[in-house]
Amino acid sequence: MSVIKAAIVGGTGYTGVELLRLLSGHSQVEVSAITSRAEAGTPVTELFPSLRGHYDLKFSAPDVDELARCDVVFFATPHGVAQAQVPDLVARGVRVIDLSADFRLQDIPTWEQWYGQQHACPELAAKAVYGLPEINREQIGGAQLLACPGCYPTAIQLGFIPLLEAGLVESSGLIANAASGASGAGRQAKTDLLFAENNDSFRAYAAAGHRHLPEIEQGLSQVVGGNVDLTFVPHLLPMVRGIHATLYAKLKNPAAAEATQEALQALFEQRYQAEPFVDVMPAGSHPQTRSVRGTNMCRLAVLRPQGRDTVVVLSVIDNLAKGASAQAVQNMNIMFGLNENQGLESPALLP
Amino acid sequence: MSVIKAAIVGGTGYTGVELLRLLSGHSQVEVSAITSRAEAGTPVTELFPSLRGHYDLKFSAPDVDELARCDVVFFATPHGVAQAQVPDLVARGVRVIDLSADFRLQDIPTWEQWYGQQHACPELAAKAVYGLPEINREQIGGAQLLACPGCYPTAIQLGFIPLLEAGLVESSGLIANAASGASGAGRQAKTDLLFAENNDSFRAYAAAGHRHLPEIEQGLSQVVGGNVDLTFVPHLLPMVRGIHATLYAKLKNPAAAEATQEALQALFEQRYQAEPFVDVMPAGSHPQTRSVRGTNMCRLAVLRPQGRDTVVVLSVIDNLAKGASAQAVQNMNIMFGLNENQGLESPALLP
Amino acid sequence: MSVIKAAIVGGTGYTGVELLRLLSGHSQVEVSAITSRAEAGTPVTELFPSLRGHYDLKFSAPDVDELARCDVVFFATPHGVAQAQVPDLVARGVRVIDLSADFRLQDIPTWEQWYGQQHACPELAAKAVYGLPEINREQIGGAQLLACPGCYPTAIQLGFIPLLEAGLVESSGLIANAASGASGAGRQAKTDLLFAENNDSFRAYAAAGHRHLPEIEQGLSQVVGGNVDLTFVPHLLPMVRGIHATLYAKLKNPAAAEATQEALQALFEQRYQAEPFVDVMPAGSHPQTRSVRGTNMCRLAVLRPQGRDTVVVLSVIDNLAKGASAQAVQNMNIMFGLNENQGLESPALLP
Amino acid sequence: MSVIKAAIVGGTGYTGVELLRLLSGHSQVEVSAITSRAEAGTPVTELFPSLRGHYDLKFSAPDVDELARCDVVFFATPHGVAQAQVPDLVARGVRVIDLSADFRLQDIPTWEQWYGQQHACPELAAKAVYGLPEINREQIGGAQLLACPGCYPTAIQLGFIPLLEAGLVESSGLIANAASGASGAGRQAKTDLLFAENNDSFRAYAAAGHRHLPEIEQGLSQVVGGNVDLTFVPHLLPMVRGIHATLYAKLKNPAAAEATQEALQALFEQRYQAEPFVDVMPAGSHPQTRSVRGTNMCRLAVLRPQGRDTVVVLSVIDNLAKGASAQAVQNMNIMFGLNENQGLESPALLP
Repeated sequence: MSVIKAAIVGGTGYTGVELLRLLSGHSQVEVSAITSRAEAGTPVTELFPSLRGHYDLKFSAPDVDELARCDVVFFATPHGVAQAQVPDLVARGVRVIDLSADFRLQDIPTWEQWYGQQHACPELAAKAVYGLPEINREQIGGAQLLACPGCYPTAIQLGFIPLLEAGLVESSGLIANAASGASGAGRQAKTDLLFAENNDSFRAYAAAGHRHLPEIEQGLSQVVGGNVDLTFVPHLLPMVRGIHATLYAKLKNPAAAEATQEALQALFEQRYQAEPFVDVMPAGSHPQTRSVRGTNMCRLAVLRPQGRDTVVVLSVIDNLAKGASAQAVQNMNIMFGLNENQGLESPALLP
Repeated sequence: MSVIKAAIVGGTGYTGVELLRLLSGHSQVEVSAITSRAEAGTPVTELFPSLRGHYDLKFSAPDVDELARCDVVFFATPHGVAQAQVPDLVARGVRVIDLSADFRLQDIPTWEQWYGQQHACPELAAKAVYGLPEINREQIGGAQLLACPGCYPTAIQLGFIPLLEAGLVESSGLIANAASGASGAGRQAKTDLLFAENNDSFRAYAAAGHRHLPEIEQGLSQVVGGNVDLTFVPHLLPMVRGIHATLYAKLKNPAAAEATQEALQALFEQRYQAEPFVDVMPAGSHPQTRSVRGTNMCRLAVLRPQGRDTVVVLSVIDNLAKGASAQAVQNMNIMFGLNENQGLESPALLP
Repeated sequence: MSVIKAAIVGGTGYTGVELLRLLSGHSQVEVSAITSRAEAGTPVTELFPSLRGHYDLKFSAPDVDELARCDVVFFATPHGVAQAQVPDLVARGVRVIDLSADFRLQDIPTWEQWYGQQHACPELAAKAVYGLPEINREQIGGAQLLACPGCYPTAIQLGFIPLLEAGLVESSGLIANAASGASGAGRQAKTDLLFAENNDSFRAYAAAGHRHLPEIEQGLSQVVGGNVDLTFVPHLLPMVRGIHATLYAKLKNPAAAEATQEALQALFEQRYQAEPFVDVMPAGSHPQTRSVRGTNMCRLAVLRPQGRDTVVVLSVIDNLAKGASAQAVQNMNIMFGLNENQGLESPALLP
Repeated sequence: MSVIKAAIVGGTGYTGVELLRLLSGHSQVEVSAITSRAEAGTPVTELFPSLRGHYDLKFSAPDVDELARCDVVFFATPHGVAQAQVPDLVARGVRVIDLSADFRLQDIPTWEQWYGQQHACPELAAKAVYGLPEINREQIGGAQLLACPGCYPTAIQLGFIPLLEAGLVESSGLIANAASGASGAGRQAKTDLLFAENNDSFRAYAAAGHRHLPEIEQGLSQVVGGNVDLTFVPHLLPMVRGIHATLYAKLKNPAAAEATQEALQALFEQRYQAEPFVDVMPAGSHPQTRSVRGTNMCRLAVLRPQGRDTVVVLSVIDNLAKGASAQAVQNMNIMFGLNENQGLESPALLP
């Protein structure tokens, strides 16, 4: 097979450098361009010395003609950017994988409300495929415009899906208590994100409403075929990578045979048996974020504490990997008919 | 007033050194003994150089006669130790403040089940006063044996109390998602607690059942005058000090005037108006653990995300301070008729 | 004695909030104003919730007349700011304590070379007193304009002084390898200072020349009465507070009786015997930065590894405390004839 | 080529799990056994869930016959263990790569003095090859018993070698100020290594004499063909992985053309031009430990601050990778005639 020519738009952030890291080990992809207006002309390795010896690229100003010569273009940009550039690329037959939030929500008014701006190409949003392979693998294969899920939505949906598909829990009153490493906030010069502001401290943020809420509810609603109602509180961890979601759902029928600890364990194992990147841990496990660091893996544990009516799911991913760039590579592999775990095989760095 | 003579039993752990730190600034207390079998004869400042210039004490082997000459004895020991030594001291008229779990539960079978051993003096447990001043100040004043609350129970009870007292939320299906700094696990040489095992990682632990669960349920049951049912999942943070509890409760009557965001804020402010160590933050705040580091303060925020049926409370304390040693000093102040915030007035170290 | 009225200019940074923390526990000082152009009108506790309950102040725009009504004005500003405002205040009889670099160097061309701008009031610089009490206590007492030493210069000078005063080591070829917590870089929104850029990583910076080099060499030259030549390499630690300096000097006469490990220990103990804020640790100690966290203490250890010709000194301070705000308070205490350790008595927060 | 059969003795520590991680991506090696007396029977993935899906192995009790059927045996054991088992394996023709200190020193009395025990097989120590490929590649190719360098010795020797080989600096009075992440202390349950003891703090240790000192001096003495005299002070960083060494050496002839900043830069670039795992950074760089995290790379920068007589070298490695397990794999590749960077090609995980 010939090599896939890829470009990355907006490559100076953390999802950009993570794409470069992962693609450097992907034998069937060549990164031919990486764009940044601010850093045009700067060698990639000057900004990211960890890539010395792996790339000779310089950042370049975005050039649609150059991008259009690629097989696939990754957008690793803030929301609002992809919308402006994607229609042209799609029209010219390029396949686009957008890591931003631009095409994640199918309801445009909801998108516009949460992101505070008008959507530039609603008609294209309707055609975008939501890139969570565990529920959407077939459509991903044929996608021309792929919307990569957010980091929290990935961890949270994967944890709730087995329970909701099986109809075991109430779809209202769901609770997702989640915490993310600081890299989730991106590589932005903000006082709130300084080392001295975050080390040895912990706090919630956006507790009244986070932009990932409608995305999660959209996904889970499709799973149950109806409304879901979720309370989602994100927190900021004094660490770099990793998301840990602790999920709570109320059993519809606590006395049912399907609701025992053993049955719940079996349900999760069965649901994800064939999934290369979802690992159901043994009963009683407490997955650690570091066990998935740098990988495309989601590790889950399910339990029913004290045999009461609330089921708890623990879900961990790496926000920059399965929560962004590695999942983007997984989607690319599916879109181009490659081995799904190509470039995604290394175990986590531990300790 | 004459100086209060205090002793600390089991002083080599984190709650012991925190007591020493706080009492070094307390003008009406003198620490006359600090015991440790393992370190008997070692100067306190050899183990804790931060106290150089503040104490000349050496650790000593526990000696009941010496302890009995004190006005107050703090037990900063693992569970099971205080039970064996307290009866003698109490009989000799010494006032005892136990920071361990030995006298927190009034139901002895429950204690024995969760702590896996027989209780040595059930009759004394019945007389112990639970030292959460915000619900128990009067009894604390007259206590001879005071049981200091656990760290999680302090943060979680203070967050739920206003809602439960006002009868606004269901008392079943309560959820407490909490996270603690590593000092909460104590100064024990365990592989799981190593720096290299915990830095840059995050995980839940004891999700199926933590020993603080019955303590929290006991306290909240007394508040509502009936059963409460709580799901409590603790997590281990890559930081040293601080507990953050994120609490979820279901409104009984979401349409009630008492259930608006404004009414909830007013309820919390009113409930804790006179409390020197509970600070209700302005609506929309996200309290940080570092804002209470080293202090006896609990900071709370209450909110009703998206106007839905679930109320969220954010509660932060320092696990070693309000969650242990500083609350012990607050209790001592009350027991001895001192100014309640004597020795507890310094603001948090920030950043 | 009547209360001293103090103002803080530029109070939104870390040295500003540290001054507020320390002065809240100083019984003879009242902070009457804290200025910030950017935050004028904002309550101090909105920016720093850790101070809730301790201050009712709002940030105000700087107003010379208001400042002139104070007994003492602290400048916690970037370099260049104090120069513009101090002359007026000094002329009106206010005592000024400058925490910035504006008046630390007596050689104006050197200042201008390292700070890249013209000095606004060279004549005043000549009258400024360098506020390192351990070598300058008498002049500090009479100072009207006090220049607080930099953080690295404090840790490094205190470590070298005994050796240089005693003439035991060569004054050329001195080496100071130092490392600072991230708070030393201030509360500035810079990408390089983000949590995700610094956690779990370590690096040198400004190795070719740091602005504290001429300050250290100026101080040590005065000690030896001649030139000193120092190589100084600072590093950035993945932690918030603390400076650790590891100092290397070559013995002039390795065989001398004054050069044994025991003699070196005695030399250091004797030199700092009367100093309230320098603690010479027992031989063989390795002082930790956390043992001085939040305090005005400098802890030192001296050793002669393997009995060879190089003496090593380990020196730790808290960069925001003895390296900035606490040393400013110590200087204020001396200037106003107060007890030198007023407001500076609390032991470090540990763990 | 047929697959190389490897075993790991003492696999429950950090160098053991790092070997497993690296070898999982090495196409020409199969790990057939991993031993641990304490964990015999436990699946490797139970101790290290990050390896789930990568290994089916269980820890086994060491069995010489089984080890003897392997092509290569890695010892990832505390010092003293390999000595007892290696002679038998070597006699049976197995190639051994020892990551411990057992065979690093050629002078047996020196070894016995620093490690406090008698050496079990001095005659074999004489035949061991020291595995620093940058000075020893040829002998490594033919080694049957390979002694992997210590972590500090690797970082420090690579930094000093160009200067000493070129005879530019004095070989006495060398200074190595180095700092290591906590994983360097291993996975041992010691109070000193707890998270709560090390986070947000920094300190030196073993400043009077560290076991790596004689190893470094042995290596550098061979480079200069004579005595070297080094002062080496290690420090413990509040992070997991990484060593940063800051090296100081005195120029013999500061005025020489070879001693300019440009000439020093050229010297380093030329010395390591052909080395796959030593990266000389551009002049003015400050290499970060995270830029080599998880990789076999050593990044160096050389500078002459202020044009004075002291040359400074900054050297970073990952203590578990180039400082231990990855260098072991590099050595194995050389010993078995494989591509030297097989299994070692992934860039660092950043951020």
